[in-house]
Amino acid sequence: MTYCVGMMLDKGLVMMSDTRTNAGVDNISTFKKMFTWEVPGERILTVMTAGNLATTQALVSLLDERTKAPEDREPSILSAPSMFQVARQVAKTLKSVIATHADEGQRADSAFNATVLLGGQIKGSPPRLFLIYPEGNFIEAGAETPFFQIGETKYGKPILVRAYDPEMSFEEAVKLMLVSFDSTVKANLSVGLPFDLQVIERDTYKVAQQCRIAADDPYYLEISTSWGEALKSAMDSLPSFKF
Amino acid sequence: MTYCVGMMLDKGLVMMSDTRTNAGVDNISTFKKMFTWEVPGERILTVMTAGNLATTQALVSLLDERTKAPEDREPSILSAPSMFQVARQVAKTLKSVIATHADEGQRADSAFNATVLLGGQIKGSPPRLFLIYPEGNFIEAGAETPFFQIGETKYGKPILVRAYDPEMSFEEAVKLMLVSFDSTVKANLSVGLPFDLQVIERDTYKVAQQCRIAADDPYYLEISTSWGEALKSAMDSLPSFKF
Repeated sequence: MTYCVGMMLDKGLVMMSDTRTNAGVDNISTFKKMFTWEVPGERILTVMTAGNLATTQALVSLLDERTKAPEDREPSILSAPSMFQVARQVAKTLKSVIATHADEGQRADSAFNATVLLGGQIKGSPPRLFLIYPEGNFIEAGAETPFFQIGETKYGKPILVRAYDPEMSFEEAVKLMLVSFDSTVKANLSVGLPFDLQVIERDTYKVAQQCRIAADDPYYLEISTSWGEALKSAMDSLPSFKF
Repeated sequence: MTYCVGMMLDKGLVMMSDTRTNAGVDNISTFKKMFTWEVPGERILTVMTAGNLATTQALVSLLDERTKAPEDREPSILSAPSMFQVARQVAKTLKSVIATHADEGQRADSAFNATVLLGGQIKGSPPRLFLIYPEGNFIEAGAETPFFQIGETKYGKPILVRAYDPEMSFEEAVKLMLVSFDSTVKANLSVGLPFDLQVIERDTYKVAQQCRIAADDPYYLEISTSWGEALKSAMDSLPSFKF
């Protein structure tokens, strides 16, 4: 499994992904699931992936190769005129990678599936965030649904729904995401640290902040341990039930 | 879908179930999923069900018919000597109901499945709580895992994990459960009010409290609206992230 969240704020985008992959609980590994392409001052594109690792690595390699020799290898996501066109290219590439492997055998269709979050901004348009399905279609975040999750989405969703605020600072958004990730990690062994974090500030067209949060990160440990107490206090603050 | 929680406290058992059943999002109904058999002063048995409604209703009807003419229709859960033997009877009945229908057609195996929570106490033994699988086997709650969920378990789990305390009062447990149910209802349309609530106090062998919490219940509405604020305060109480 996997857990990735992409969140649109008034100030820009915050993206966070875990790094655990597993083939059964007895075979876990650490792989990066967040990938970025930049043309400083013109565009910033970040992809996060969930699903079959062979599929997502092939997708990222294909997208990457095309950016390195754009004159020969169209279409490149670095030359697409809009975020919508970038999403179409990513979606088409994803669908074709899955189709390549699904052709080979029976019952293999869903096993090769993957889902992608694409966030970024191209000069002249606002930041945009897309959720791309293995079928090659996609949806875009908006004011009513300003964040997307992929992978193990359920454990970490209630806190996002309740505490999200489009006006929050990047620091507050990271804190909120860490609580959401911590709830997920505690419930699903197939989601694990370290986490990759990236912030894209509106109208800067570059990575504003990027870091990896390790399992022994003091801030993460503090959040993880104090959240239990904070929740108990929140419960205490609610009115009491009477039979 | 469904959401039911059975929780073991030092003081006894608390059980809560939703009442929504659905066949697609365009066909929802309200059905009771909590059923109780009592021999006052000797035993109290409560069953909560998730899964195929025809299966769970057949299960409850079979269990119920046998209790009404126990001399003719052995085995009855009212004459079983222990909670473990009650669990075996429920499990065996459940498995046989599923098998009856699964015989009839192809691919129908999992569609007829159901899962059961069984809680109660028989004089001479402590209260016990079981999670019974459609395969007819079951597990029992203990000090390390003092509550079970069935149905849509994920959205409501993090708060239970964090805020559960075996020493809590029944009132506190109900408050905690309502928060867990509220998070689930807000995320999954196939879980819905009203909720059925039952409290079994240790060594009383009868229902201590029982009520139905409707969608317009003032206490529920207060919890539902104030939990968002309480969570935001809890988030604010955590230390701030710094890049």
